Amino acid sequence: MIYDITIIGTGPAGLQAALSATLRNKSVLLLGPKDSSTKLNKAPEINNLLGFEKISGKDLKEKFFNHIKSLDIKIINEIVRSVYALGDKFLINEVYESKTVILTLGVNQVKIIPGELDYMGQGVSYCANCDAPLYKGKVATVIGYNDEALHEAKFLSEIAKKVNFIPMKKYANIPNKLNVINGKPLKIEGGNLTLDTELVEADGIFIIRDAVVLDNLVPGLETNNGHIVVDRNMETNLKGLFAAGDITGLPYQYAKSIGEGLIASLSAVKHIDTNN
Amino acid sequence: MIYDITIIGTGPAGLQAALSATLRNKSVLLLGPKDSSTKLNKAPEINNLLGFEKISGKDLKEKFFNHIKSLDIKIINEIVRSVYALGDKFLINEVYESKTVILTLGVNQVKIIPGELDYMGQGVSYCANCDAPLYKGKVATVIGYNDEALHEAKFLSEIAKKVNFIPMKKYANIPNKLNVINGKPLKIEGGNLTLDTELVEADGIFIIRDAVVLDNLVPGLETNNGHIVVDRNMETNLKGLFAAGDITGLPYQYAKSIGEGLIASLSAVKHIDTNN
Repeated sequence: MIYDITIIGTGPAGLQAALSATLRNKSVLLLGPKDSSTKLNKAPEINNLLGFEKISGKDLKEKFFNHIKSLDIKIINEIVRSVYALGDKFLINEVYESKTVILTLGVNQVKIIPGELDYMGQGVSYCANCDAPLYKGKVATVIGYNDEALHEAKFLSEIAKKVNFIPMKKYANIPNKLNVINGKPLKIEGGNLTLDTELVEADGIFIIRDAVVLDNLVPGLETNNGHIVVDRNMETNLKGLFAAGDITGLPYQYAKSIGEGLIASLSAVKHIDTNN
Repeated sequence: MIYDITIIGTGPAGLQAALSATLRNKSVLLLGPKDSSTKLNKAPEINNLLGFEKISGKDLKEKFFNHIKSLDIKIINEIVRSVYALGDKFLINEVYESKTVILTLGVNQVKIIPGELDYMGQGVSYCANCDAPLYKGKVATVIGYNDEALHEAKFLSEIAKKVNFIPMKKYANIPNKLNVINGKPLKIEGGNLTLDTELVEADGIFIIRDAVVLDNLVPGLETNNGHIVVDRNMETNLKGLFAAGDITGLPYQYAKSIGEGLIASLSAVKHIDTNN
């Protein structure tokens, strides 16, 4: 099946977009954590969103998610690694097809490793499942920021000759076949990674973390200082691709996210109705 | 005193703007009806604003206004007839001074009389209080759409030689000194008004109605099809003047109005902090 609208992110912008699209009878794929926004969870009191007088972040989040549930909107808990624009449709994570996509990823807080963007696709990869075959009989380094990284490294070790594993968090039970090296990444040059402890030479580097690097997520997407460039209809430079919320820039506030989520959603609806 | 931010309109955009500006410790003048949006009042059920699951228009409005009250924000019930940009400040209704202005007037549903805009300021006026002295010893025609029109016509009749009164609604107790003429306005040429019944000749015409004609409200404001042209920061072509909500264009929805109200408010705050 091909979805009408795929929404990536479950903060206020993503939820409002899903709400509005569903009320317009469009098929919606909502990808992201079911329990979004740790920022919101931690807010002791919110008073700057009209109609919610001095509400706790937890209660506000509950109202948002309950509203979504009341409309039978399902959330698929999946990190999105790739969005490809294929002319009249989009391919997400090499699995889902959609007529339009709305990016509501929040503020991009990834700390890029120097050299990372320069060697993207030329030594640097973000998906072992996708690119492992390229490393058959070769040496790969995995920089692991989350649990998924260990799984990806294990999978890679079944194909590659050798896999270095740089843990950026505490891991339990790292398999012996992974060559663990401790250190802080300082620089990337091709497949070689300079740590503060040593130089790790390899054919390629896999960086596995929760947040995505925008330039890698959607090839060809126009960004500015880590924000996605949009027009007043929340459309990006790629036809049928929209963005809303913190990822489009300041101010980082719920009211803006919700307003933009609505506009992006209705713009996507209009795009579908015009092009189909 | 000079206000930091004057907000004209008390729909969702205006209220969110007032809320955000107040939380940023700016002095706010909020002008408009205390019981805004008859549209909202009449909505039996609203389900398209995130966090408000199947709420009645009346209840939603109550939540909005209660939130405003909780922050001690006062609403001044006054129709705004003029906003003049005077370089580094604005003059509203020839009385209030403000560093910035946010227009949240809603959809402009005025039905313009053919010729009205062409003769604005050259035979057509919207304010008897302002322009009555020009008609000393002359003949004026008042087209009345609201109760205020009768007061304006009476005032005018104390100065002008003769006042024609064209009632567009039922009026009780029209004074004898007003020359009542019934008919539907078809065309304006200078001070002459063509009705479907007869031609009414005079030196000038006063059109008194609740809604304002944007071109007249703010001289020099850029509009497009009755909407105010804004950029992504909700700034108009006049520095320090912002707009938000339905008046900036489709979609006419609360989520958009609230998001834009916030953005306009923070843009006004930024303007003040940069220019003072």
